[in-house]
Amino acid sequence: MEVIESVGGMQEVALGMRRQGLCIGLVPTMGFLHQGHMSLVQRARSECDRVIMSIFVNPLQFGPQEDFAAYPRNMERDLALAREAGVDYVFTPTGASMYPEGFSTCVEVGGAMTEKMCARSRPGHFRGVTTVVMKLFQIAGPDRAYFGQKDAQQALVIRKMAADLNLPLEIVTCPIVREADGLALSSRNVYLSPAERETALDLPRSLEVGRELVLKGERRAEQVRSAILGHLSASGAIRVDYVVACNGQTLDDVAELQGPVLLAAAVWVGKTRLIDNIYLEV
Amino acid sequence: MEVIESVGGMQEVALGMRRQGLCIGLVPTMGFLHQGHMSLVQRARSECDRVIMSIFVNPLQFGPQEDFAAYPRNMERDLALAREAGVDYVFTPTGASMYPEGFSTCVEVGGAMTEKMCARSRPGHFRGVTTVVMKLFQIAGPDRAYFGQKDAQQALVIRKMAADLNLPLEIVTCPIVREADGLALSSRNVYLSPAERETALDLPRSLEVGRELVLKGERRAEQVRSAILGHLSASGAIRVDYVVACNGQTLDDVAELQGPVLLAAAVWVGKTRLIDNIYLEV
Repeated sequence: MEVIESVGGMQEVALGMRRQGLCIGLVPTMGFLHQGHMSLVQRARSECDRVIMSIFVNPLQFGPQEDFAAYPRNMERDLALAREAGVDYVFTPTGASMYPEGFSTCVEVGGAMTEKMCARSRPGHFRGVTTVVMKLFQIAGPDRAYFGQKDAQQALVIRKMAADLNLPLEIVTCPIVREADGLALSSRNVYLSPAERETALDLPRSLEVGRELVLKGERRAEQVRSAILGHLSASGAIRVDYVVACNGQTLDDVAELQGPVLLAAAVWVGKTRLIDNIYLEV
Repeated sequence: MEVIESVGGMQEVALGMRRQGLCIGLVPTMGFLHQGHMSLVQRARSECDRVIMSIFVNPLQFGPQEDFAAYPRNMERDLALAREAGVDYVFTPTGASMYPEGFSTCVEVGGAMTEKMCARSRPGHFRGVTTVVMKLFQIAGPDRAYFGQKDAQQALVIRKMAADLNLPLEIVTCPIVREADGLALSSRNVYLSPAERETALDLPRSLEVGRELVLKGERRAEQVRSAILGHLSASGAIRVDYVVACNGQTLDDVAELQGPVLLAAAVWVGKTRLIDNIYLEV
């Protein structure tokens, strides 16, 4: 496994692999790796000749009041995990090399998809995500890029960017990986105290309540949403950011649930913001 | 020479060429070709294994009051010229295939470079340019892309986009091609009546006045700008949009001309908007 810090160096290696006709898989991460990330690597490993993992805590996607400085980092452990998982190249650029002085370009997906859910409480977040992902795509030149379904809105926004801009690559979305008790893996789980960790379980449980309602035949989006919200609100220790039961491809609000459906929620547990979702075909 | 209308078809051909290790040159145009365009093809022909020319009048870069519908088109003649010049592939997408329903992504270079000069009278223009150029880059996968210096601001904005987003390609800017009497070639020159064609000569002449002043040692930007403006204003038939004497790489205003210098102007002659510029190393 090779660790490459330089943008130009990574780009040169990727261009060389493309010239050799090798299929490149890219797993973009912000590090502090967990089994969710590693499931992306496994998928990439099984589908591509070479796997590049990027580790970059992207300042552009954090708001001024958010946890950029505090975001957990552990490069040594990350590199060991990446090596163990069979990553070929880890790309670890510096902030200054990704955003040199005078940097002033952005890639933005407009429309409803970037105006609701996480966009409301994180203005500019998705613009930061699409901009850095576009840069990573240009640097690493992947044939396939792997994202986790846990960030459902992010995965859809990136998919839309790729379609609208004709990016010559495939976006692969991989299932959420959960702890045995149901909590979705997240680098931010490390922020949780033992009591908060227990409280946080109401997030996946509330979504399960929604899923069961749908499986029992409920099709009214508002009823399903209310049930999820009701479960979350029952816990005095959780502050709800949003709950949606919407179209799972466009994120459009719907009255009746049919076809692809996304049940998603974001909550605050103490100072930690957690998101989770369930995707259903109805 | 092959003419390809389908986005997917063009992308497949380009990916195939890349896999073969062929160097691809892209000449993006809006058609109605003249010797300016052909000089880009010649340069591409001399530096690349394969030359792709795109012909697409991009609606996204025209304002609602602008000449999108009236913009001159002559595909038959364009294809003959392209074939004669040794273009390998002409990419002629439809508007509907480039911007399908629900298209909502943009690429935007921010900052002073896209707030002055042509941006003032053409809001959204450069966003339309960078978005379509990004799409063309993703579709045609060029190693080098060729742009004319006549659109000096456009060339700099595209260069900035390519640098900021780490595009794995080289932007090549080629010199302005002029008529014998000095008028810069432009597809829009066809709009000019014989009398307007004569009036239009004051545009290159005014810039020459500016150049001569600089060559004689004048370094005060405002003096040079005033001289150009004075020459243009002397013609009652010209309406000045802007005149600048600025840094030729950043487009920043400067008090003293040194290093790369751009003398540029945009004017209205009747209903036709014309631009021209002179680049100098001081």
